Amino acid sequence: MSMKENISPRWRELHGSKNWENLLEPLDPSLRQEIVKYGEFAQAAYDSFNFDTNSKYCGSNYYRKDDLFDKLHLTRHGYKVTKYIYAMSDIIMPQLLETSLADSAWSKESNWMGYVAVSTDDESERLGRRDIVVAWRGTIAPAEWVQNVKIRLTPLGEGNAKVERGFLSVYTTKGKSSKYNKKSASQQVMKELKKLVSSYKEKGEEVSLTITGHSLGGALALLNAHEAATTFANDVPVSAITFAGPRVGNIAFRDKLDRIGVKVLRVVNKPDMVPKVPGFGLMDAMINNKLGRSIAQNLHWTYAHVGVELEVNISNSPFVKHEFNIAGFHSLEVYIHLVDGYHGSKSEFRKDAKRDLALINKSTGMLIEEVKIPENWRQLSNKGLVYNEYGRWVEPTRVEDDLPSPPSESSDDDSSVDSSTEGASQENEMN
Amino acid sequence: MSMKENISPRWRELHGSKNWENLLEPLDPSLRQEIVKYGEFAQAAYDSFNFDTNSKYCGSNYYRKDDLFDKLHLTRHGYKVTKYIYAMSDIIMPQLLETSLADSAWSKESNWMGYVAVSTDDESERLGRRDIVVAWRGTIAPAEWVQNVKIRLTPLGEGNAKVERGFLSVYTTKGKSSKYNKKSASQQVMKELKKLVSSYKEKGEEVSLTITGHSLGGALALLNAHEAATTFANDVPVSAITFAGPRVGNIAFRDKLDRIGVKVLRVVNKPDMVPKVPGFGLMDAMINNKLGRSIAQNLHWTYAHVGVELEVNISNSPFVKHEFNIAGFHSLEVYIHLVDGYHGSKSEFRKDAKRDLALINKSTGMLIEEVKIPENWRQLSNKGLVYNEYGRWVEPTRVEDDLPSPPSESSDDDSSVDSSTEGASQENEMN
Repeated sequence: MSMKENISPRWRELHGSKNWENLLEPLDPSLRQEIVKYGEFAQAAYDSFNFDTNSKYCGSNYYRKDDLFDKLHLTRHGYKVTKYIYAMSDIIMPQLLETSLADSAWSKESNWMGYVAVSTDDESERLGRRDIVVAWRGTIAPAEWVQNVKIRLTPLGEGNAKVERGFLSVYTTKGKSSKYNKKSASQQVMKELKKLVSSYKEKGEEVSLTITGHSLGGALALLNAHEAATTFANDVPVSAITFAGPRVGNIAFRDKLDRIGVKVLRVVNKPDMVPKVPGFGLMDAMINNKLGRSIAQNLHWTYAHVGVELEVNISNSPFVKHEFNIAGFHSLEVYIHLVDGYHGSKSEFRKDAKRDLALINKSTGMLIEEVKIPENWRQLSNKGLVYNEYGRWVEPTRVEDDLPSPPSESSDDDSSVDSSTEGASQENEMN
Repeated sequence: MSMKENISPRWRELHGSKNWENLLEPLDPSLRQEIVKYGEFAQAAYDSFNFDTNSKYCGSNYYRKDDLFDKLHLTRHGYKVTKYIYAMSDIIMPQLLETSLADSAWSKESNWMGYVAVSTDDESERLGRRDIVVAWRGTIAPAEWVQNVKIRLTPLGEGNAKVERGFLSVYTTKGKSSKYNKKSASQQVMKELKKLVSSYKEKGEEVSLTITGHSLGGALALLNAHEAATTFANDVPVSAITFAGPRVGNIAFRDKLDRIGVKVLRVVNKPDMVPKVPGFGLMDAMINNKLGRSIAQNLHWTYAHVGVELEVNISNSPFVKHEFNIAGFHSLEVYIHLVDGYHGSKSEFRKDAKRDLALINKSTGMLIEEVKIPENWRQLSNKGLVYNEYGRWVEPTRVEDDLPSPPSESSDDDSSVDSSTEGASQENEMN
């Protein structure tokens, strides 16, 4: 941390107080570092998520919240995770959530959906304020996205603001059937944010809220930012830094975010399809044209992008393959790489970009062959199986405090353990 | 070890001195345990082998010889590895050897091909003698095998014995271009065996030699057994326990193995194709028929299977899928599972078979879904990449004594390090 510039004098500007004016062209080096940091926080939500449908912990996080940043080599950012957020959905939307096929699944309905983290004392000094981060997990299947995201707007609060029903469903669904979602994701995250904000405010600290996410996570970030800014009014500056986010709502939603002071920086890789859904550019054309705009404003289903766009372009990097690749163009690690190399819209890829190229191939094969890093290298040893004391390969039974812990309904004590997910090693009984 | 039966009174019989007569139908429990053990020794040669062509250590063993059994959870067998064997080939035969694509490859020509191990003092007491094991590595592509194994016999020593040219090439090729094969595999293994045999004989111990291997490794085991029995004459009983081995030589080769006292137990899974090459059963038919036999004996290219066959059958196990699967039927882990459950040719799968079913799916998807073990689960964490002190994901640079060490030409000191494979981490210099 000591090697990073102290950004405390400029933090409001870097956080978007002036809509990042004059910071994007060319890209301010400190802002670049901040965007990369939030990108890595969003990436952490993928890297720690159990996508293995054979696992009884499918849909949960592999790590305890206190271990998350350590396991993912992110402690250098100087934040601590304070809360895990779970979500479910009452709308069937392919690829939004993962479901364990195991009979003894920890939960058949809920998914770990993101986390809240706070900057440490040291880092807060460098940052000029206490920064609270919410990082939302996205999904991994852009092809399904592009096909399945329908235009189904639903009202959000009072006024004319409307948002995509599927996204809102993930954010607001709660149900008695799942111990992890007796409260919705919205309720869980807002409770935690209120607690943190009031505790730091009481100490007289300045506090900022930065919400991040990739893909679906970018959509959830906007819904969360909307709610947070409404809740905290002008007490806490709220920014959303999103990557590859789809359109979320109508023009009234966009205008409302503006009005309540939410600052949105949307990072978009030009050839990525997901930020073009729903709508595939038709709405863009209408909105950018006066006549079209007046027509569009009358269409209740019009989707609009919000905030400020930072457009990067895969064709600018000499380190990635340029052939059409729907998943590769959408990959968050590719996005972060492009931000790391971005100088300006007309500039070449930064010669002094230092971010590890190996990360590009974490879950893609986008890195050029010359670098000799295997494709899709991110994987667990033996797919998570461990050799137990009886000489058998089993999915490890988690120790109590390592289990996904259901957010409790009425108390602040979240350490209670769901007894139905306890015990019973997955050891094979068929021998 | 203390829980296993002491087999010292019966060791010669179990080692094949009477061609396993009356031990196979029904299968003697102690013999079953021995076959499983040697199968696991052969499997170790796969589990520790670097097949990753992006790795500069492709074709070598991931572990040092002193760590091998510990890393693979095989110390319970009570053996210690004494030597690694390397091979190259002057014949192009697809899928026999692996070649690193990395510029800085440890060797472009040689492959780690197997190892020599010796029973410990304690285990030797249980076994009734000092048992020396040679385990040969096979290949992983049965489909290519079945297509590519041609009938190309070449003379082996004096007499009429002939063997497949490709197999013999792997066993006997040496070349100045590779530091690891200034000696051939044959020379390396025989030097080690002579050293071990004379050292234990000098102490007045009884010594046995058991050679094992799967697929190509089964072929190499027979060539090695032939040479060892010729070398040690009647001083040391030599057995080969092979799994899924192809035919190796002509009838004269088979007869010679018989004559020099090599005992061969061939484990064959009935629907596996590899033991049927070269020849696909035609030769079997001829050899089992008197007239055919006299014709076949006159054909110099006639391939013959040797020794005693233990036929297991995948259709006998309720734990594996039965649909045609050329790779699955050939898998060594499937073989070991079938031996573990084998009671007799007319008997059902053993109810009290205890071997871990998860192992079946180590490199296949053959295990029935109900057991809920992921397919092909054997994998390294992050494909072997590690996070280094500079925060980059790299292929670990091996420490000196961890490097594949070329067998020295004229001394017993094999600890010398090939300087050309030293240093230079694979850290990415392109940033």
